[in-house]
Amino acid sequence: MNTRPVITLTTDFGVADGYVGTMKGVILDIAPHAQLVDITHEITPQNVRQTAYVLYTAIPFFPSHAVHLVVVDPGVGSARRPIAVRSAHGTFVGPDNGVFSYVIAGVPFAEPSVEAVVELAHPRYRLPRVSHTFHGRDIFAPAAAHLAAGVPIDQLGPAVPDPVTLPLPRLEVGPKVVRGEVLHADHFGNVITSIGLLLWQGDELSLEPIFQGRGGQKARFAAGRALVVARGREIPRVHRTYADVKPGQPLALVGSEGHLEIAVREGSGADRLGLRPGDPVELHW
Amino acid sequence: MNTRPVITLTTDFGVADGYVGTMKGVILDIAPHAQLVDITHEITPQNVRQTAYVLYTAIPFFPSHAVHLVVVDPGVGSARRPIAVRSAHGTFVGPDNGVFSYVIAGVPFAEPSVEAVVELAHPRYRLPRVSHTFHGRDIFAPAAAHLAAGVPIDQLGPAVPDPVTLPLPRLEVGPKVVRGEVLHADHFGNVITSIGLLLWQGDELSLEPIFQGRGGQKARFAAGRALVVARGREIPRVHRTYADVKPGQPLALVGSEGHLEIAVREGSGADRLGLRPGDPVELHW
Amino acid sequence: MNTRPVITLTTDFGVADGYVGTMKGVILDIAPHAQLVDITHEITPQNVRQTAYVLYTAIPFFPSHAVHLVVVDPGVGSARRPIAVRSAHGTFVGPDNGVFSYVIAGVPFAEPSVEAVVELAHPRYRLPRVSHTFHGRDIFAPAAAHLAAGVPIDQLGPAVPDPVTLPLPRLEVGPKVVRGEVLHADHFGNVITSIGLLLWQGDELSLEPIFQGRGGQKARFAAGRALVVARGREIPRVHRTYADVKPGQPLALVGSEGHLEIAVREGSGADRLGLRPGDPVELHW
Repeated sequence: MNTRPVITLTTDFGVADGYVGTMKGVILDIAPHAQLVDITHEITPQNVRQTAYVLYTAIPFFPSHAVHLVVVDPGVGSARRPIAVRSAHGTFVGPDNGVFSYVIAGVPFAEPSVEAVVELAHPRYRLPRVSHTFHGRDIFAPAAAHLAAGVPIDQLGPAVPDPVTLPLPRLEVGPKVVRGEVLHADHFGNVITSIGLLLWQGDELSLEPIFQGRGGQKARFAAGRALVVARGREIPRVHRTYADVKPGQPLALVGSEGHLEIAVREGSGADRLGLRPGDPVELHW
Repeated sequence: MNTRPVITLTTDFGVADGYVGTMKGVILDIAPHAQLVDITHEITPQNVRQTAYVLYTAIPFFPSHAVHLVVVDPGVGSARRPIAVRSAHGTFVGPDNGVFSYVIAGVPFAEPSVEAVVELAHPRYRLPRVSHTFHGRDIFAPAAAHLAAGVPIDQLGPAVPDPVTLPLPRLEVGPKVVRGEVLHADHFGNVITSIGLLLWQGDELSLEPIFQGRGGQKARFAAGRALVVARGREIPRVHRTYADVKPGQPLALVGSEGHLEIAVREGSGADRLGLRPGDPVELHW
Repeated sequence: MNTRPVITLTTDFGVADGYVGTMKGVILDIAPHAQLVDITHEITPQNVRQTAYVLYTAIPFFPSHAVHLVVVDPGVGSARRPIAVRSAHGTFVGPDNGVFSYVIAGVPFAEPSVEAVVELAHPRYRLPRVSHTFHGRDIFAPAAAHLAAGVPIDQLGPAVPDPVTLPLPRLEVGPKVVRGEVLHADHFGNVITSIGLLLWQGDELSLEPIFQGRGGQKARFAAGRALVVARGREIPRVHRTYADVKPGQPLALVGSEGHLEIAVREGSGADRLGLRPGDPVELHW
């Protein structure tokens, strides 16, 4: 038995309507053996930047033959192009609005790995009738299914030389400080920042600045002497895990993606500290 | 490798409890190769009409060999019958309370296509112990699994000549007006009405009234001259897509199912205009 | 075609972030043919007791070859052990914090059936880099996948002689009364209590006290003469199903797991009666 093709789905559709189920019906009609995996359908409606972040955290853990279907699409029905992107780390299908920015920039992978970007133009790989408002069903799902079933990417349409990319999040490394921003607050209220990748080396942390590309300035400092500043609040040192402090206490730590995270043990860091995506965060040492 | 059987699930169980997972355990014990697809588990509790609508939008996109398990069942434990329905477009399993009304009426398919309706009476295709309160687990899930595994529908129980059906939504076509009602407000706040199917023909729209059966009166009019009236508010013309207006602006458009939809670009039409299921909507031209 | 391995997932991660999807990517990279089933990801954050309850209701309906991955883990990164448990009814993977208490106690199965408990210590069955904060991805998901792919449990690490267990819920059987507690309020607001298993025998109910082990005192009484008391409110008799009373009326009944349940037909028993987990409930006859 060969490996079953994997197709992941990431949308802002929620799960109350039948939209996600409908896309899965379209996929299984074309690629009956696909293994379908939901990444999330609870992206804040039309939040392209959050989508790019979620893909950044999840994609590296999937097999490289997976096809990632992404429908967060404020411009549906406008002139924005539907695209597919093939990289060494997976194949991506969705609107050309920046959702694949971090993938195309080679983040979080070792280096840029994009092999092809095409516009989903060929009618053979769309549904017979394409609506103006639900390209997830009519264009993106069929394209993902055909790619998973083995259709070569260049059959889906012409090459796109200039896909849209978002600016990378703020990350400035100074002599004894890093300035970054809040990327995301998760379900637990843990606040993830752009300050990363942080790697433990004994009791020290080394910073390999991921959002500056490979030319970024590195740093190394003692975790016990660090000071995190966010919204005027000072949080001393960087911990290893939530259990290092008492329940209810705020702390800074290295999160599961290697980014500086601000949290409250068994509580919500986002609520307690009032932090939102885009807010500046500093790490001093 | 043969095609794997597809079983979809639609319930009002939510996803906080283990009920949906439990049903899937029952299914996989009987039909280990089934491909399981959630349509939604967030139907408003016991809302039969919303269920009929969601099935109406999703089912046509699934392969016709799929089995659709539906558990929205305010009468569980009462005398209402558990049934299975086989049609040219799929097989359906659930309570006989109207959830399959639009399927049985042949909507949204070209014509009525029901081939068999049976009561799920045979104990062999139930769990050994049937509770009074969770027929989803004890009767419907096993029936869906056995059907997906190839058991002929007439083995599950006797024919049901008179399944329960809901009245179809309001749709009255006059000389220069169509009167309909709100069917549903989706996750984005887009308000879907019973006025459909609307098809673009150049800059004109043709109306093929789907909820009147095949004898319904057709119409054709210029989209640019149309006027939508809902809750005393007038919305001029019918657009092709959200991106035709500025962010925050209300608009009328043809939704992805071919129905008249009232929306606000990058906002909620339902909240802004205060529209709820059952509210009257008129389209003048 | 052999039976595909089944892996279920139960977490408190919610579905808004990509965490669950990330774990599934890890699993499919190791066990590409796994059938993945979500039990729930909406456990109240870090609620170990609720997790034990949900597993109690769902697990008996899965095939015994299934692997159950459970990540509700307030102590992630602390000294609490990651474990796997093999029983006659399934294999379990998660933190050693009591989530498997009812499984290890042999509840709801006929008798204790644990065959092996091991600590997930062997680095070969973890991801190469283990974070301090996301053991679901780095330790538990790989272990579940390797177990589903056929690795013997004793290869994952040393035996654990003393896994953590929670005290069982309150259940005291007197001559004409049973005293228990609220276990859970579900999505519909149905309040499930520790008073069970109740089995119908004609118009009488027999009580086989499940949370006292096999030495518990049995009882038998007429359902029509029973009286349920909770928060000072008296609810007469025990019914078979919701449809036995009028919409909006409170009632006591035997729920789908065989436990005494307090509900309001087409309403929320939890809201109406103000009942919460741990509240005392009495059944008199």
